[in-house]
Amino acid sequence: MFSQKIGILGGGQLGLMLLQAAIDWHLDIHILDPDPEAPCRSIAPHFQQGSLQDYDTVYNFGKNLDVITIEIEKVNVDALAALTEEGKKIYPQPSVIRKIQDKRIQKQFYKENGLPTAEFRLTKTRADVAKHADFLPAFHKLGKDGYDGRGVQRIESENDLDKAFDAPGLLEKAVDFEKEIAVIVARNPAGVIKTFPVVEMVFHPEHNLVDYLFAPAEISEAIRFKAEEIATRTAEAFGIVGVLAVEMFVTKTGEILINEVAPRPHNSGHHTIQANATSQYEQHWRAILGLPLGSTVQYAPAAMVNLLGEAGHTGPARYEGMDTLLATEQVFPFLYGKAVTKPHRKMGHVTIMDENLESLRDKVALVKSSVKVLSM
Amino acid sequence: MFSQKIGILGGGQLGLMLLQAAIDWHLDIHILDPDPEAPCRSIAPHFQQGSLQDYDTVYNFGKNLDVITIEIEKVNVDALAALTEEGKKIYPQPSVIRKIQDKRIQKQFYKENGLPTAEFRLTKTRADVAKHADFLPAFHKLGKDGYDGRGVQRIESENDLDKAFDAPGLLEKAVDFEKEIAVIVARNPAGVIKTFPVVEMVFHPEHNLVDYLFAPAEISEAIRFKAEEIATRTAEAFGIVGVLAVEMFVTKTGEILINEVAPRPHNSGHHTIQANATSQYEQHWRAILGLPLGSTVQYAPAAMVNLLGEAGHTGPARYEGMDTLLATEQVFPFLYGKAVTKPHRKMGHVTIMDENLESLRDKVALVKSSVKVLSM
Repeated sequence: MFSQKIGILGGGQLGLMLLQAAIDWHLDIHILDPDPEAPCRSIAPHFQQGSLQDYDTVYNFGKNLDVITIEIEKVNVDALAALTEEGKKIYPQPSVIRKIQDKRIQKQFYKENGLPTAEFRLTKTRADVAKHADFLPAFHKLGKDGYDGRGVQRIESENDLDKAFDAPGLLEKAVDFEKEIAVIVARNPAGVIKTFPVVEMVFHPEHNLVDYLFAPAEISEAIRFKAEEIATRTAEAFGIVGVLAVEMFVTKTGEILINEVAPRPHNSGHHTIQANATSQYEQHWRAILGLPLGSTVQYAPAAMVNLLGEAGHTGPARYEGMDTLLATEQVFPFLYGKAVTKPHRKMGHVTIMDENLESLRDKVALVKSSVKVLSM
Repeated sequence: MFSQKIGILGGGQLGLMLLQAAIDWHLDIHILDPDPEAPCRSIAPHFQQGSLQDYDTVYNFGKNLDVITIEIEKVNVDALAALTEEGKKIYPQPSVIRKIQDKRIQKQFYKENGLPTAEFRLTKTRADVAKHADFLPAFHKLGKDGYDGRGVQRIESENDLDKAFDAPGLLEKAVDFEKEIAVIVARNPAGVIKTFPVVEMVFHPEHNLVDYLFAPAEISEAIRFKAEEIATRTAEAFGIVGVLAVEMFVTKTGEILINEVAPRPHNSGHHTIQANATSQYEQHWRAILGLPLGSTVQYAPAAMVNLLGEAGHTGPARYEGMDTLLATEQVFPFLYGKAVTKPHRKMGHVTIMDENLESLRDKVALVKSSVKVLSM
């Protein structure tokens, strides 16, 4: 069962953590990434430099493999669809990736499947956005290619209309939310589903990137139950095989609305490597290889802080304050080995564990204040 | 602190788990191993095929590196000593490896340092052994090159003398022990020492290999305290930098005697990957890179079962019963990816966790009865 040839489209940090988990079963992993200096480069048993969006490159990469997965959605789905027809196992399925690639289709999918999400209006051009002044304040989201906080703009009023994208997108009603939470859910080909404990994310005020998170989230049992139920229904609606990260808002009135999903391991699940019996990465392998899903029990409260490139620093990276971090108990840095830092680029993360919630919070504050990613 | 070039002598399963841990900090690892199909081969950023015992090979491998460690003791120590003189950091230090490589020197070292160990007599030849009939029953241990159960023979009486090795060795009084335990201890260059919780090992009746272990050991507080104290004193006596595994007997009268030590990560610490905050592998990196040692707190009771090649099977390996194992909660197989299985060869291991001790034991029994490593 472990002798199949497996491909990953993308060799960034998520690919790297998938590779690390794959060592346990000595899986034969092939990576495709356009960046010759991608984080996976030196660790992957097989690494090929090439475009993820070019039909021929993706098709030729996949044609000698048995199972193919992704660590990024922006891939050539037509090539994956052709490979599926030839009997390759492509998980998540091309049909799932296609729906999620375009936020316009994604949002309509929620609506059609009775999955709760914020009100929205589809737009095609910047001029189009102007027609929905009655709908503001709202977020204007680019249909395709938004990533890591890019492709989202808050439009407060008509005065902000110049911020809108002049491309197909959608206006999403600004939600007055209490918390942003996420549930990572896995589904295997037999349709078995398991969820990881709900996490609570705190976003960077400007850059729309996860700044840090706590796992489990501090929410009521009722909210927790509802969040897990929505995540499970979402995985079922997509019929996805693999891991799906479901990001949600909890509104001030206790409503839960799906924000967006990612059909792969996700930033909101890095801490599962240390904190949970099965990590999201191993769970993804279990799901796509058709194996029983693992236990998601969590051993202690955990937090995760993203290490983002400091503003004003571009160039070869250096890490300040690692000593403090390594000298603190149950604080685990993970560096992605990206050669160059840029402002707000995800350069690594830190997982933190502690039985005591107050001390967990203190450690988060310590990590946030002591570590900086600078250029040399 | 993470940009040094690091070498590991040996690319077997311990090297593989060191590599896996090194991914967190994107360490630049170079591996030397005589086997072109060594487990580390496909994962190591740099892999060189070559002898670990040849002076020139080891010296040339090390001369462009900054830090060098080992995952096996049978290496050319003279080359490592020369590299130390040139300013390379060699941890464990060549002087420590030299003492441990020869069980005759190792035993005398315990005696000189007031560390408790079973009574012994040094022997040079088989004829020599015959002179110590009064000392039987005893184990005859080869001074050098014993490994994974090889190089040890029980000599019951004078009738068994033909089993003795005709090479320098020692006779060790057979200890009437209650349990075999081990403590993994780490020491960094600043002299800071941390121990992992005491584990209890059950050896294969014939092959003198760890069959399975429980962590923590079921022992009294007094024994636990004494075992940790002996392990700490042993690490201090050697002055080792890195991880040291101290295997001990607990006698029926509650005495603790050191059996032997290994100056590297060890089979008795595989479970720390899942069960402890810091694994023995990360702890080894912390120690040899001069970093603060990590917390060794354990999250739940754990067990570890070695997957040994089945008797009568030699050839390309296949694994029977993995499905049962993967369908059981908190049971984690790790396969070393060795191309060929041989009788009693270490092919992998399984870590098992459970809050409930009875259910932990049931899972150990299930793993032992369901998984087999056979040839194709």
